[in-house]
Amino acid sequence: MNNVFEIGLLLDFYGQLLTQKQMEILDLHYNNDYSLGEIAEELGVSRQAVHDNIKRGKAILYEFEQKLGLLKKFTEQKRKAMEVLELLKGINIDKLDIGERESIEKIQEGVEFIINRI
Amino acid sequence: MNNVFEIGLLLDFYGQLLTQKQMEILDLHYNNDYSLGEIAEELGVSRQAVHDNIKRGKAILYEFEQKLGLLKKFTEQKRKAMEVLELLKGINIDKLDIGERESIEKIQEGVEFIINRI
Repeated sequence: MNNVFEIGLLLDFYGQLLTQKQMEILDLHYNNDYSLGEIAEELGVSRQAVHDNIKRGKAILYEFEQKLGLLKKFTEQKRKAMEVLELLKGINIDKLDIGERESIEKIQEGVEFIINRI
Repeated sequence: MNNVFEIGLLLDFYGQLLTQKQMEILDLHYNNDYSLGEIAEELGVSRQAVHDNIKRGKAILYEFEQKLGLLKKFTEQKRKAMEVLELLKGINIDKLDIGERESIEKIQEGVEFIINRI
């Protein structure tokens, strides 16, 4: 998995466990593509301080993922839900009655809800 | 939600963040229905120590749930996945061709996988 993308996801899961400053800096760097220099200028701190916050923040995120493994768990669920969605699209609903067609639609909506909550 | 059941689920999510002793005591009390006195005897510690560990351990679990809200998120997903499973059972597969029946079976298996991983 792409490192930047992975850290973005880890921030979604565990960001609330970082300090406000760590969260702000990692969000700017990994979700908004700011360079360290740009963040330093934006927040009026040294480039070294930005670097240290990123290093420490990342370490915390990976520490929690190692303990709880929620990103791994959610990623597996999402992959499975995407497979289910593909299979649903392969069902020819023309042969089904109206009630069953509505069921298929609701099933699709349900699976999409699950995917979007992951 | 039933408190004992809820704490059992919180232990699944966040148990790795407790000390080994807290985890052991909460697991005995909430997952295995041991009384405080029984745990004290089992582990050779005072009843007060058991009480303190439960109080502190519970506080940690709820603190993490308040910050990360993963139990809430997973519970919503599970409810939705159970709804999807019910709808799937209402589809009359007799009208479908063999490939589509297999798809419905795979969809059901996929949704069950998601439920069991929650």
